[in-house]
Amino acid sequence: MLARRVRKALQEIVGEAHARFDPAQLALYAYDATPFAAPAQPDGVLMPASAEEVAGIVRLAGAEGLPVVPRGAGTNLTGGARAVQGGLVLAMTRMDRILAVDADSFQAVVQPGVVTEDLQEAAGEQGLFYPPDPQSADTCTLGGNLAENAGGPRAVKYGVTRQYVLALQVVLASGQIVRLGARTLKSVAGYDLCSLMVGSEGTLGIITEATLRLLPAPERRETLLAVFERLRDAAKAVCASMRSGVIPSAVELVDEASLRCLPDLGLDLPEAAAAVLVMEVDGSAAEAVRAAGRLAEVMQAGGACRVMRAADEAEAERLWKARREVGPSLARIAPLRINEDIVVPIARLPEAISGIHELAREQDVTCACFGHAGDGNIHVNFLLQPDRSGERERVERAVARVFDLVVGLGGSITGEHGVGTTKQAFLGLELGAEVVELMRRVKAALDPDGILNPGKVLPLPGLGRA
Amino acid sequence: MLARRVRKALQEIVGEAHARFDPAQLALYAYDATPFAAPAQPDGVLMPASAEEVAGIVRLAGAEGLPVVPRGAGTNLTGGARAVQGGLVLAMTRMDRILAVDADSFQAVVQPGVVTEDLQEAAGEQGLFYPPDPQSADTCTLGGNLAENAGGPRAVKYGVTRQYVLALQVVLASGQIVRLGARTLKSVAGYDLCSLMVGSEGTLGIITEATLRLLPAPERRETLLAVFERLRDAAKAVCASMRSGVIPSAVELVDEASLRCLPDLGLDLPEAAAAVLVMEVDGSAAEAVRAAGRLAEVMQAGGACRVMRAADEAEAERLWKARREVGPSLARIAPLRINEDIVVPIARLPEAISGIHELAREQDVTCACFGHAGDGNIHVNFLLQPDRSGERERVERAVARVFDLVVGLGGSITGEHGVGTTKQAFLGLELGAEVVELMRRVKAALDPDGILNPGKVLPLPGLGRA
Repeated sequence: MLARRVRKALQEIVGEAHARFDPAQLALYAYDATPFAAPAQPDGVLMPASAEEVAGIVRLAGAEGLPVVPRGAGTNLTGGARAVQGGLVLAMTRMDRILAVDADSFQAVVQPGVVTEDLQEAAGEQGLFYPPDPQSADTCTLGGNLAENAGGPRAVKYGVTRQYVLALQVVLASGQIVRLGARTLKSVAGYDLCSLMVGSEGTLGIITEATLRLLPAPERRETLLAVFERLRDAAKAVCASMRSGVIPSAVELVDEASLRCLPDLGLDLPEAAAAVLVMEVDGSAAEAVRAAGRLAEVMQAGGACRVMRAADEAEAERLWKARREVGPSLARIAPLRINEDIVVPIARLPEAISGIHELAREQDVTCACFGHAGDGNIHVNFLLQPDRSGERERVERAVARVFDLVVGLGGSITGEHGVGTTKQAFLGLELGAEVVELMRRVKAALDPDGILNPGKVLPLPGLGRA
Repeated sequence: MLARRVRKALQEIVGEAHARFDPAQLALYAYDATPFAAPAQPDGVLMPASAEEVAGIVRLAGAEGLPVVPRGAGTNLTGGARAVQGGLVLAMTRMDRILAVDADSFQAVVQPGVVTEDLQEAAGEQGLFYPPDPQSADTCTLGGNLAENAGGPRAVKYGVTRQYVLALQVVLASGQIVRLGARTLKSVAGYDLCSLMVGSEGTLGIITEATLRLLPAPERRETLLAVFERLRDAAKAVCASMRSGVIPSAVELVDEASLRCLPDLGLDLPEAAAAVLVMEVDGSAAEAVRAAGRLAEVMQAGGACRVMRAADEAEAERLWKARREVGPSLARIAPLRINEDIVVPIARLPEAISGIHELAREQDVTCACFGHAGDGNIHVNFLLQPDRSGERERVERAVARVFDLVVGLGGSITGEHGVGTTKQAFLGLELGAEVVELMRRVKAALDPDGILNPGKVLPLPGLGRA
């Protein structure tokens, strides 16, 4: 509970209408999309309208020793948007303006509260393209995408959010407002603090503006779906598609457990289907058609028992549903699920996926795998039923073993969801204690008093699963 | 001069044959390719063969308070490889092995002393492609490319070195050997220390191994050359080529002053040529041909008085000479030149180039501009004759004004050459004092005693042009 004096000072910074201290309102901000995360109620929720207001809040928070937790749409899956040590949540949703879309320099300047899809559309109107495409693009904000270094299906060809960040305006822990990076395609003027901020989950600075790179929009997209009777063949076909010289703009895998939960999509999938790949290629009209043909050949040669190619956009939508409906469908059959987003080098994908299913069997838990196979990033979903005793513990054991497996295969415990609170216990497993310590030193250099989103990313005693 | 005890300890680490203390030998390492840089003789030159040897040297250097300056082929243009505070030069050229080219995971694992072209060739043999292509690719090393975040002509489509770095093995200032990043296409496990190391010019750690991303090799390249009678039209055509939906794999500009110094290349350029663009497109055979046709149309519509398209590889080589021979030709007509590598947003290119020529006229100095116009990165070459009194001062005034102009246009003072010692005085102009201070804090966190390549990147009193 904040002192009256502090509340008053905060109200003066953002205006009375944009400062919330009422417990009923604070409760709304005690959650994000993370499953099994305990509510974490902040002491205040502030909705700043400018970098100057953010700076004012941060200065006050520094003086009072209050944590500051920036938050976009709250779609975070690893607890990153939760005020686990109390303090102030900064809801950035009022800073939602697209300040510029510069079609000549292929750049957009945005505030952090812009919804990802809104930028995609604004770029599209000018024949431009913003590739990062997280599943929650119609809801999540660019500030959240920057904080987590969001990916999505197109990363296999176009890379992740970090690759589109040219420059950032950031409020530092000191309350200073600085500009990092350069509004140019290249710059080596000093250390890459811009890349350091991206993916730092609000623990090193608060992003108040971003200059993002745009590309010319591809003229055409072609969508394909390949059905496999063996999961291993599907995983191998992912490598083969890359080896064929075609770089698809998406290669999404859906395994048998995920397929089984899908409603009837009218795709008439064979009974024996053990996995499907949903793929997209893009480029000039001629190139997209050519690449789709090549990819269909590669799939057939790789053992696909059926390859469908969308004749028009409606059909493309239908094929994509075999991937996009997996999440919602899993949610329907299992009220709770733990969704990990491991990554392995793509050549290790067959081993990884079969290994994960083996570990799930060992622990007697249900597991469905799907996701961005083109870059080796698989969403491993463990499905829980509330009435099965001991299941949560078995799932946690399975998760820990999956991480061991993945790290052993040269992979990473998180491809796009971040560490937040939920993966802290496993960070050292992947990075080693020395690297975690190095990260701590970077954190201390940028936020000596630890007021920026404390308790996230770096394992602290008594937090997370540690 | 090192104490006998220290020399002996160093010899024990790397072997007697690989530790040099003889003044005649030290003098060989007092220079890099930076013009006008005073010789900076190290106290010792060591040629380690492993990360463990590097770690041993760094630990000893830390205990003795000796600077450690890593060095590849010495092609650095901003003084980065010079031991400006004495100490130990680490010549990484013995660590020159390509440890793996993994065609299934699209990765290579390399030591820092590998020559860039050797990796390009090793990748090519497996149908793979390592895009970064600095002008000195046949000489420079990947360690140097990583230290400077090297670019080259293909960056317009493929990005710079940082975008190909998946993971690094680094020796820290403490002598610890750590692994940063992940051997996967995505990972958000903690802060992006990998990107922080890339471009840090050996001031934050010494890279002893890198896992680099490879792409499928494009099936075909097409080369074009467009001649313009007005520089401004050429600069505008650069934007137009991007707007046309084609992303060329190179768009190189050569201005009139650069053209005039070229030998006869048999290209029969018109007398009135004020600029040429040398361009490349790549992709599948069909796509490269299509894109080349589209690009030729765009150039004609943009006012090119002639567009040549190479019929075969020999002709492509000849067209490329109009760009690649500029540097050597300038060197022939002017024994000394100062080569800056400014960058602007591509829409500001016309203003930038005409502004630079105006500033050169004001200072009565000769200036030739050429380079990677596709990403807004122009090499501004000021040509000096030893017999012209006061010319060097006039050039330095012109350089300072060029940086003012570029920063005013939203650009950067260096696109790929780095800061080293020569640009320190201008770093604050671009970044502001707060950001320079932030970089100092990062440096202090990673190298508290300041032994790693001291006197580079961050302005220190009495160093560089400050």
